[in-house]
Amino acid sequence: MPGQRARELGIVVGSLPGKLIGATQLSELGVIETPIVLTATLSAFRAADALVSYLLALPGNGDLISVNPVVGETNDGFLSDIRARPVTAQHVLAALSGARGGPVAEGNVGAGTGTAALGFKAGIGTASRIAALPGGQRFVLGALVQANFSGCLTVLGVPVRPEGALAGQPGYREGAEPSGNSCMIIVGTDAALDARQLTRAARRAVFALGRVGSDFRHGSGDYAIAFATVRGQAMPDAHLNPVFTAVQECVEEAVLNSLLMAATTAGHLGHIRYAVPHEYLLGACRRAGVLAPVR
Amino acid sequence: MPGQRARELGIVVGSLPGKLIGATQLSELGVIETPIVLTATLSAFRAADALVSYLLALPGNGDLISVNPVVGETNDGFLSDIRARPVTAQHVLAALSGARGGPVAEGNVGAGTGTAALGFKAGIGTASRIAALPGGQRFVLGALVQANFSGCLTVLGVPVRPEGALAGQPGYREGAEPSGNSCMIIVGTDAALDARQLTRAARRAVFALGRVGSDFRHGSGDYAIAFATVRGQAMPDAHLNPVFTAVQECVEEAVLNSLLMAATTAGHLGHIRYAVPHEYLLGACRRAGVLAPVR
Amino acid sequence: MPGQRARELGIVVGSLPGKLIGATQLSELGVIETPIVLTATLSAFRAADALVSYLLALPGNGDLISVNPVVGETNDGFLSDIRARPVTAQHVLAALSGARGGPVAEGNVGAGTGTAALGFKAGIGTASRIAALPGGQRFVLGALVQANFSGCLTVLGVPVRPEGALAGQPGYREGAEPSGNSCMIIVGTDAALDARQLTRAARRAVFALGRVGSDFRHGSGDYAIAFATVRGQAMPDAHLNPVFTAVQECVEEAVLNSLLMAATTAGHLGHIRYAVPHEYLLGACRRAGVLAPVR
Amino acid sequence: MPGQRARELGIVVGSLPGKLIGATQLSELGVIETPIVLTATLSAFRAADALVSYLLALPGNGDLISVNPVVGETNDGFLSDIRARPVTAQHVLAALSGARGGPVAEGNVGAGTGTAALGFKAGIGTASRIAALPGGQRFVLGALVQANFSGCLTVLGVPVRPEGALAGQPGYREGAEPSGNSCMIIVGTDAALDARQLTRAARRAVFALGRVGSDFRHGSGDYAIAFATVRGQAMPDAHLNPVFTAVQECVEEAVLNSLLMAATTAGHLGHIRYAVPHEYLLGACRRAGVLAPVR
Repeated sequence: MPGQRARELGIVVGSLPGKLIGATQLSELGVIETPIVLTATLSAFRAADALVSYLLALPGNGDLISVNPVVGETNDGFLSDIRARPVTAQHVLAALSGARGGPVAEGNVGAGTGTAALGFKAGIGTASRIAALPGGQRFVLGALVQANFSGCLTVLGVPVRPEGALAGQPGYREGAEPSGNSCMIIVGTDAALDARQLTRAARRAVFALGRVGSDFRHGSGDYAIAFATVRGQAMPDAHLNPVFTAVQECVEEAVLNSLLMAATTAGHLGHIRYAVPHEYLLGACRRAGVLAPVR
Repeated sequence: MPGQRARELGIVVGSLPGKLIGATQLSELGVIETPIVLTATLSAFRAADALVSYLLALPGNGDLISVNPVVGETNDGFLSDIRARPVTAQHVLAALSGARGGPVAEGNVGAGTGTAALGFKAGIGTASRIAALPGGQRFVLGALVQANFSGCLTVLGVPVRPEGALAGQPGYREGAEPSGNSCMIIVGTDAALDARQLTRAARRAVFALGRVGSDFRHGSGDYAIAFATVRGQAMPDAHLNPVFTAVQECVEEAVLNSLLMAATTAGHLGHIRYAVPHEYLLGACRRAGVLAPVR
Repeated sequence: MPGQRARELGIVVGSLPGKLIGATQLSELGVIETPIVLTATLSAFRAADALVSYLLALPGNGDLISVNPVVGETNDGFLSDIRARPVTAQHVLAALSGARGGPVAEGNVGAGTGTAALGFKAGIGTASRIAALPGGQRFVLGALVQANFSGCLTVLGVPVRPEGALAGQPGYREGAEPSGNSCMIIVGTDAALDARQLTRAARRAVFALGRVGSDFRHGSGDYAIAFATVRGQAMPDAHLNPVFTAVQECVEEAVLNSLLMAATTAGHLGHIRYAVPHEYLLGACRRAGVLAPVR
Repeated sequence: MPGQRARELGIVVGSLPGKLIGATQLSELGVIETPIVLTATLSAFRAADALVSYLLALPGNGDLISVNPVVGETNDGFLSDIRARPVTAQHVLAALSGARGGPVAEGNVGAGTGTAALGFKAGIGTASRIAALPGGQRFVLGALVQANFSGCLTVLGVPVRPEGALAGQPGYREGAEPSGNSCMIIVGTDAALDARQLTRAARRAVFALGRVGSDFRHGSGDYAIAFATVRGQAMPDAHLNPVFTAVQECVEEAVLNSLLMAATTAGHLGHIRYAVPHEYLLGACRRAGVLAPVR
């Protein structure tokens, strides 16, 4: 989510292990000082170093001698030659200088190029809500995920299993994929939440992974960062339910989008990850009665 | 779960607010020194005082000058006259001295008498698993829940809504119940886990509430305590997946049992909580194809 | 500190074990809903129950069905017959209804009657500061401690040991006292800090115990609660140093006051705790050059 | 502390902000997978990347696709041209391959070359203890610090201020140094502690900074990692006091060694940091009576 400068408050919840660079300082100081970069596990450190280079070179930063780069990662080593650390400083600088507002690319893009989730090819996904607080004030909340975790894909309660959805696909082998792995979740809002409240929201972002079928295995390293773009007097906690609902809905939808926007990918060592077949998924939902039948 | 003395290591995860008396000392010292008592919110303190009385009077405790009573609570104030604090020291002492091994009573018993969950009458529920670690060693894991939280009851992915299930029941009103509230979860195992690993297990106990439809509202105060009854060299974390699976399955099943074993209850101020109609629930599951049709 | 109603934000840091009733909910919700009661370990639960009684009976609380009483404790079992749980609901209600503004009683009062610290009789102590933030805005910060912990009393860096200070006192025996034990610390301020910043302040309150010689033993259960009496936009963290300085100075001074205001006490089983002799302490400081000699 | 492979359990306490790369995964998984590298703030990420390179190239690691490099840092930007990020991958690889057992270099070495503490030039310091547990079993515990924090140097309770110690030194200016900054602390032991107990020990390592005069300012980012080199059944917590004493003594002594072994250094932009004059320090201690006079 590079390119956004307005955030003034943020907080991270590391509900599980992982290597979110910058995490402990975020928790303590409650400020996101840099763009958030997402990449592959073993490339995280050179990406962080490139992010430092970018910040040192920014106009006005001539006196900067400390900064807390925020870099999230997941392990894409099944499809990607992760040991080669293919992401270079040039890639990171290009991503940072090329960041634009507007619709967010989803699926096989950026750090989502090599990821997979719930038995299918996944990637980057995003979703947002406009909702109202109890007093009527409207707020915007969005989530972006780098989906890369194991479990059984669940859509509106309906399981969609790769052994059914992908039967007959060349190269598909049941159980071929490693379990565990992680999901990086970033939640942003213009609601006036303080760090404590954002931590409560971030916790619910992790909880929402259960809705889409995460098995929360040992190897998983899920993180959620929630930040507010405004700073002011925090709202009463009794008003938080619409925020919590929005967080859970957005994370659920963002994970589904990360799958539905992804494309089948052949990678490293001949490994293949298939995208979830849209028609199969819709059929399963219709059979379960959670989607209306096609007329 | 009074009466069990063998536990030697335990740890609590307060993922959400709540009043688990003893929580911070459990986290720091990793030892459960007392039976665990469950009761109603406003009775928690006199229950803890009664638990102290019980412990001071035990043979061999004549020199005891400090103890960390563990008391969990949820708010049953919709059905119960919670302000009257009806649970007395005598009730607590009777429960402690009457604790027995063997099958655990479920539904409208003890601290579950006045609780409700997911739109229906709930109570106490329990479930257990015998499973094997990667090396083949078997372990037992059990969960007990005091279910009292909001959301949409979800059984094997199928939503079971009170407005459908209870339509036509006298006194049923949609939306009559308060949102929020809590679930106390206690997980015990004979697997050799240390405090850090038990914390990881307890976190997954809270995650499992998503499987049955918890909405994780602002007012919820879910807690999970996980303890091991053996003390020794901890297993490698890479072996934890069967434990994590057992935790999530047991908590899911224990919540369902807390609902299916509960009985419709009329309480304080004429408030009524209906038990989930078993046939309706089974029908919904059959219609969705997650249960085989009756022949 | 009963009787203060204005606090709107608060946060607790449990740096060490202990039984601060209400701790986890304070951390999650950031609100102190009740007066803070301090008492002896085994009386904490009936004190909390009495605090609930007090709150249920307050005008306007007729609909109250949940509340999070905050009760701190330390173990005074060396001087006090702690197993008798002599603090009754009547004592608590009398303390609550008798709470007044103005100077705070120190030494052998209330929960400080039976406590000891650093080898001497201790009790309740308090201290406060008026200081200025970087922008010039003034703030008030006060600390109150229930001192009851082990170590070597250190005044301005000068050790004051009981084996020297109390040599020749009847009934004094070296090493007679148990190690470990705890300090409850309460910090209040009118500076505009949010929950995250108050947590940072509370952590420094615990750190300040090192200044007076705490040995941070296994059995210690120190807690600090820091609350702000105003709610608004939080100050920048870069402005926090005067707050952190005030916290550390106030806690150091409050512990010293808890000792210097205490009186020698004979208690349970003939146990005696001597107050630190003021002249001896001053002499030690003068000899070390940290106080000017008397002319 | 590169080159040590034996550690099997470790845990970190981030009591304050900072950029300890790998921190959250250490807490969750309790394992230190790599040598621990210490460096300057802005070089931490390329040092972590070099550590990854080192590990990928180690014999037997041909299948390694995930690793959690542990890199600590403090900000040496007063003496060092920190923006230049002078530490390269080659430096890191040379340090790793050159790591040897035996006495540890102290003062102006490695990541201590540019650091300062308590008004004087500091660097790397270390100390260790052999002590006995209650049952008589002996254990070894050592601490290594990268000292770089503000406050008033305190030796055995005696303040040693730069404005006195350095008066008349060319280029010395009172108040020239920035406040805040950090201390990285690493504690290792062969006592059988589990992750929870090591966390308790690490907390006391941070507390020990108060003994040498840390002011725990806003900008400080102190971290302590404590690890055990053996894995087995953890000792009872009631036996921890000798460990806690050793931790506090070692950290205190290691910080003093980091100062006493450091040499006056002129660096970037003409900035100078003077080493504490040994005779001045000894004189101050003798005048206060904490050291015997020279005969």
